[in-house]
Amino acid sequence: MSVFGARFLAVDWGTTNRRVFLIEDGQVARTERDDRGVTAVTPGDFDQEAAGIRERFGDLPMLLAGMVGSTIGWQVAPYVAAPAGVPELAAGLVWIDDRTAIVPGISTLIAGRPDVMRGEEVQLLGAVAAGLVPDDALLAQPGTHCKWVYMAGGRVADFTTAMTGELFALLKKHGLLASQLTAEVTPGTAFLEGVEEGRRRDLAASLFGIRAAKMLGTREDADAAAFASGLLIGADVAARLETSGHDTVHILADPMLGGLYAAAIEAQGRTAHLVDSHAAFVAGINEIAKQ
Amino acid sequence: MSVFGARFLAVDWGTTNRRVFLIEDGQVARTERDDRGVTAVTPGDFDQEAAGIRERFGDLPMLLAGMVGSTIGWQVAPYVAAPAGVPELAAGLVWIDDRTAIVPGISTLIAGRPDVMRGEEVQLLGAVAAGLVPDDALLAQPGTHCKWVYMAGGRVADFTTAMTGELFALLKKHGLLASQLTAEVTPGTAFLEGVEEGRRRDLAASLFGIRAAKMLGTREDADAAAFASGLLIGADVAARLETSGHDTVHILADPMLGGLYAAAIEAQGRTAHLVDSHAAFVAGINEIAKQ
Repeated sequence: MSVFGARFLAVDWGTTNRRVFLIEDGQVARTERDDRGVTAVTPGDFDQEAAGIRERFGDLPMLLAGMVGSTIGWQVAPYVAAPAGVPELAAGLVWIDDRTAIVPGISTLIAGRPDVMRGEEVQLLGAVAAGLVPDDALLAQPGTHCKWVYMAGGRVADFTTAMTGELFALLKKHGLLASQLTAEVTPGTAFLEGVEEGRRRDLAASLFGIRAAKMLGTREDADAAAFASGLLIGADVAARLETSGHDTVHILADPMLGGLYAAAIEAQGRTAHLVDSHAAFVAGINEIAKQ
Repeated sequence: MSVFGARFLAVDWGTTNRRVFLIEDGQVARTERDDRGVTAVTPGDFDQEAAGIRERFGDLPMLLAGMVGSTIGWQVAPYVAAPAGVPELAAGLVWIDDRTAIVPGISTLIAGRPDVMRGEEVQLLGAVAAGLVPDDALLAQPGTHCKWVYMAGGRVADFTTAMTGELFALLKKHGLLASQLTAEVTPGTAFLEGVEEGRRRDLAASLFGIRAAKMLGTREDADAAAFASGLLIGADVAARLETSGHDTVHILADPMLGGLYAAAIEAQGRTAHLVDSHAAFVAGINEIAKQ
């Protein structure tokens, strides 16, 4: 019998945000999100943070995932090599004490191409465990760093991370295009034009084209952000689909960002399927807690 | 007879820097570079700046090129549409007064893909006029925004700008990779590994690989900047060579940056030929002044 039992606390502890779940009989009894990500916690204060969570949610066993297990977190939980499923993650748990454990991340190094994930693995395995996606599937987790993951036999077989969201954030905040990229991004015409341009996979040139379009008056600045987002997401999607035989991409994301990726995937002739990422996380953490 | 005669001042007036040449009988009699680029000049003060140049270099006719003719410069010199050669630029000169003129930039809009240049055109046409490059050639002008230019019959026929240098600068200064990209870039093994990775034209994923390589210990951070530079330049070169039948690329740049592009071009099976960009500018401004 697992130490986590029927009631435990699950914490999705990222770089900037943290979400705590009180799990009772596999269900979320209560959840809270705050901005106490690992970078907001002074090294050495993680035990106090955990004590604070137990004061608010109950004095229960605690299973942590995400950057809390990285070099900037509480304690390093070394990466487990892909292919990896729930048994490998459960075997790789790093125990802080006899009722507090950190889930390890997953690494891959196929054909000399290194990649890592930390936190996403719980959602991925949970999506399969809950039957939200098939055992063999291509999953996408858009965000600052978009994960594209091949599941095979219900395990994480291989994956690629693209820093698509970070590039967009850098361009919005700094540099030549920043003043043009202020409008909100919606999956309309300008976004889809960007997706089409992104298929050329010539980002550095396509991005300058946004400036040139302004100088020559061929696109309104109101459309520039949507075009730029479409361009970056379109290039990401095109690179991934080129090497994938899957007809469907299962997207784990909030509806806004997930909707943009879905539009780009469908514009490139595949089917997109949005999956509830919170439900997937809860299913995944339950599976790991059980083992 | 041109108003510029045997003695005149040529000013290559960019965004952040400015270079003044005193030209006598087609030769550079004296030159100075300073940081009085257009962004350092208060709008309305350009006439004083020009007067200051004449005080130091002589009370002579003046031919200006670069961002001084943009919306953030002295007066807008509207883009001349490609294909454009010396006669088109001379015809498009914008006169501030009867002995002070600004050279226009060049625009292109082929297959709905807009692009612009302003300042580079003088070097390009000068390189041909001085016999430094053939009348029909592929030229590259690396920099913050790298210009790739097809010359045909000695005129600028078409071109593509890639913001390769700006992307590298953004990544070095901001975001996830900044702390890894501090070493100097040299065209060694790590750079060439980056060039090879760049050929995959999957920038957002290849860039995250730099982070993953650190996490998995597969590459020293001392090599990360060279790899990242190779990746960005390699992707730029690959995209351009894919659509070019030219065996040789003529590079107008300082030896350091020009050397990196040359290494990437030769790694991809073409010949690189470094051209003296200052000599090209002087030849170009002389040609325009003559007409």
